[in-house]
Formats: sequence, C-alpha cells, structure tokens
Amino acid sequence: MLDCAIVGGGPAGLTAGLYATRGGLKEVVMYEKGMPGGQITQSSEIENYPGVFREGLTGMELMEPWPAQCMHFGLKHEMKEVKQVRKVGDHFEVDLGNETVEAKTVIVCTGSTPRRAGFKGEDEYFGKGVSTCATCDGFFYKGKEVAVLGGGDTALEEALYLANICSKVYVIHRRDSFRAAPPTVERAMKNEKIEFILNASIEEAFGDAMGLQGVKIVFNDGREPMELHVPGLFVFVGNDVNNQVLRQDDGSWLCDLNEQGEVIVDLNMHSSVPGLYAAGDLRIQAPKQVVCAASDGAIAGMQALHYIQEHEL
Amino acid sequence: MLDCAIVGGGPAGLTAGLYATRGGLKEVVMYEKGMPGGQITQSSEIENYPGVFREGLTGMELMEPWPAQCMHFGLKHEMKEVKQVRKVGDHFEVDLGNETVEAKTVIVCTGSTPRRAGFKGEDEYFGKGVSTCATCDGFFYKGKEVAVLGGGDTALEEALYLANICSKVYVIHRRDSFRAAPPTVERAMKNEKIEFILNASIEEAFGDAMGLQGVKIVFNDGREPMELHVPGLFVFVGNDVNNQVLRQDDGSWLCDLNEQGEVIVDLNMHSSVPGLYAAGDLRIQAPKQVVCAASDGAIAGMQALHYIQEHEL
Repeated sequence: MLDCAIVGGGPAGLTAGLYATRGGLKEVVMYEKGMPGGQITQSSEIENYPGVFREGLTGMELMEPWPAQCMHFGLKHEMKEVKQVRKVGDHFEVDLGNETVEAKTVIVCTGSTPRRAGFKGEDEYFGKGVSTCATCDGFFYKGKEVAVLGGGDTALEEALYLANICSKVYVIHRRDSFRAAPPTVERAMKNEKIEFILNASIEEAFGDAMGLQGVKIVFNDGREPMELHVPGLFVFVGNDVNNQVLRQDDGSWLCDLNEQGEVIVDLNMHSSVPGLYAAGDLRIQAPKQVVCAASDGAIAGMQALHYIQEHEL
Repeated sequence: MLDCAIVGGGPAGLTAGLYATRGGLKEVVMYEKGMPGGQITQSSEIENYPGVFREGLTGMELMEPWPAQCMHFGLKHEMKEVKQVRKVGDHFEVDLGNETVEAKTVIVCTGSTPRRAGFKGEDEYFGKGVSTCATCDGFFYKGKEVAVLGGGDTALEEALYLANICSKVYVIHRRDSFRAAPPTVERAMKNEKIEFILNASIEEAFGDAMGLQGVKIVFNDGREPMELHVPGLFVFVGNDVNNQVLRQDDGSWLCDLNEQGEVIVDLNMHSSVPGLYAAGDLRIQAPKQVVCAASDGAIAGMQALHYIQEHEL
C-alpha cells in the first residue's frame, strides 16, 4: 500500500513528491511515463520562475535540477502510465494496465494540453515563435507585432494581455462572430492595438532557423490569401484537460469537475473526494505557470500527509 | 496614479511585481521599508524551494537573485512603510504617513510573524536550532529528538508532523490542558513518539557556536527544573498576522478577514474588495512556504492586470 501515488511528473508532481517525502511519508511513487519535467521543458525561454534567471534559460534547463532535488527525500519515479484511479473503501486503486497498486492518497498532476490548430509549420516553430501562453511568452515580443489565432474567451483575453506589451495584435479568427463573452469581445474591438482578421485561417507558418517570421492566411469569403509578417503567433484553439485517469468504467468521474473538465479544488487542492488532490494545470482556475504548479504540488503533498495522520491510515 | 501598489517585499510581493510588470503594467511600486526578501532570509538552510538546491543554501542566498529579476521588468521599490490602505471611489489610497499615493489596484503581502516565547537564548539560537516552522525545518532533525513549545492546534499539528520524521518529540506546555481541538490532542496523546512535559515552560535555551544543544525547563507545579538535550526546538506560541495596513480609522477592516485576522481570498487571491488582493502568509490557509507565497504573488499580479483591463481603468 503506497502512502501517496502521484500521477504526472511535471512541476506539480515533482514538488508534491518533494513535500510528501520530506514530511516523512515513506512510500511515495510518482508515475510519469516519460522524463519528469512536464510541458515547460518544451519552452525555449523562461524568465518568470522567481529565483532562477539568466538570459536564454530554456524550460529544459530550468527543470534540470528538479528530479534530483525532489527525489532526494525518498520519492520514487516509475516510468509507467496510469490508466485509471479508483476509490475502493478508504483507499485508492491506481490501475497501471497490467497491474494495480493500492494507495492511501492520490495526487493527480496530469496537466492540460493546448490544442494545436493543425497548420503547416505549427510544430516546427512551436517554442520558436509559436506559443500557447501569452503570460509566459508575450514579453519576448515587447514593442513588436504579434498574431493570435482563435475567437474564444481565452483568445481574446490573451489578445488583450498582449496588447499591453506588443505594438500590435492581429486576431485571426475563422468566423466573423465570436464565442467569447460579449464584454470581452467589446473590449477587444475597442482596443486600438488589436486588429481583427476575420473569416480567416492560417495555412502555413514560415520562418528560418532563428524562428518564426510570419504566417500565410487564407480566407473563406473569397478574398485573396495574404502574408502577415510577425515574429510571434499565439494559438488559442482549445485546451484538452488531461483528466482521463479520473474517468470511471461507468462513464462517471471519480471527483467533481467543472464544465471544462477541470478538477474542482479549494485552496488546499482538495478535490470532492477525501484523500484525492489535484495540482497544476488540470485544476480549476489554474494560472498555468511553473511556480503556481509547484505551489499546488507543495500544498497537495502537505495535505496528503495531513490526511494520513488525521485518519491514522 | 499607480497601476498597482504592492505592500511588502517578500517572495509574494516580489513575484507579484514581476508578473504585473512583465504583463505590461507600467506604474508598479513595491513598498518595503527594509531590504526585499522577507522572513525566509532569516532561515539558515532551505532545501524545499524547487529548482534551487545545494547543501547549506541559506534563505538569504536563495533570495539574493530575486530583486534584480523581479525589478527587471519595471517594478520599482520604495523603502517606505505603508500605514494604511483605503478605498476611495474606484481606486485606492496608500497612506505613507507623510504622503498619500493613489493606486488602481493593491496587493497586500505583509505576511505574518510567529510570536516569540521570550525565554533567554531564543533570539540567539533562532535559525540555529530554534524554529517556528516544522514543514520548513523538521527534516533537518530526521531521526533525532526535538522539542515543541506550545499547546494550541498549531503546536500539536506540528508535533504530529515532526513525529513522522524525528525519533522523539517532547511537547512542552505551560498547562495540563490544551487549547487544541480534542481529536488533535487525542492523536498526539496516542502517538508513541510524542512525550508531553506539562505545567512547564522554557527558562533558557543553551548551546554553542554550532547551534542549540538543549533547553532548561521549569515547572509551575513545584517540580525541580530539568535540562532537555535537543538540537531542535519548535516554538508555536501564536502568530501575528500583519494586517495593520487594512485597519480603517473607524476600527473596521478594509476587506473581510477570518477570526485569526487573515485575509479571506479565493483561488485567484481576490479579497472581498474588487481590485484588492492578498498574497502570502497573511491570507487564509497560507501554507507558509516560499514557493506558495511566490505563486500567490504571481496570481495576484496577473489578476491586478486583468482587473485594470476589464474595468478599463
């Protein structure tokens, strides 16, 4: 019986393991099929993780020391994929496909995955001009022109964020109406730095070894294709919450989720099921920042420890 | 008119400034009378801030690079003490005693201060054996005997936490009854690693240049004084929330606080007053960890930015 099973090995999972083991839990396993580090390891530059700051620091470099530190106190890493987490009596079952492990507590840190739009060059220039996070990468385009792809709430909110920093923000949207909330649309429309390119989609991103230089835009209203020369493109066409491990055989969910599929938590990262915690990008209102995911993990690790003590498990 | 006034210069205040300015706010001032860095700079060793890990890392060393990084994007630091924050119409007034500054948003990050018990040697050995945080420092006494001073909820919860790590935990308490919740008292009583020393107080802490070696205990029930040889002593005799800046002239508070005087916030660090945020140890359920305070600050900084955009201030 594990004291704590941690599902996912990004900043949240690693820090949860650090806090749980440093607090005295003995059997703590982090399940992460790949190398620990998470989504941030794909980032080409990070300058907003407090305390670690130098020009050109990559996400991979930022995360490099984490596994050794977090595993220093007894956290184990197993390169296995968790299929499902179930509650059975007063403990949990972690289904690994060919085996099932029991755990007193579970911390789910599987994150979320921004959807790709699917245009040519998107993967090639991802992290080299193509981004899915304005808070993370907007500042790198200070005083420059950028484009945003999408017409939902996130797209327009992020366009407004970018308008604070950049000289111009082109919003490329496939329709001429918006899914975003009307007040947000209105604010974006009124913002003089934001220019809409409607009934439009991106056919291709182009650039060179240094990164993105622009995008080729095609229209569905008969206009001629055009090229837009921008060093930064922010793609907001949806977000997949990686909540699959919480799906039960009968189609229900192990704990309460919101409409977007994010785990509903309180300030202590408690889900609706005692002993089950969520940390990082799969929880509601996740700020999607490394320092915030790490904090979530720290909190969840401490709470798991407290839960075991309180219930004398 | 400032975009954002930040009150306090610990990890929460610094990170709030980093995120607010990097997100494009122009006029952001952090008010911190002393050097930025916060309470953690008094800590002799820290090994649970993810990503920064080496033997003997002090709190001062951990925080050393923060001010330059956080001020790199335009955050200003003013070495002034904030007396009071008031709401006037749709903005705030930050009262500095001899001047008053207006701000669109305010982030309060003034923390809380663990009370000292007042025995001889307490200050001398603080950070060298005397601690006020088991989550932070408990691990440094792994397999060793430690003492806890206090009989409230925090004291007993922290004693239980330490019992997971240490070989023995002496709980020194001045009465033979407890203010802590009965189930917590019961769990502590049942824990075989915890031994109570009741009707007792600490007269003196002693040690040498390497740190604490023990405490001299006196009793109020006529027993002879005794010496307890422990390398670690955790003092939990109360906590002062630094919420004075929120106190209004009529004795009311600017925003909702709980019974302990902590600011009630949601996951977005919103207080009950729009445009006013709390981050770090002065908020409810604060985990009192550097990474968590930094995360709070990041969230509050992003939310202040969002508030200004949303309200077109």
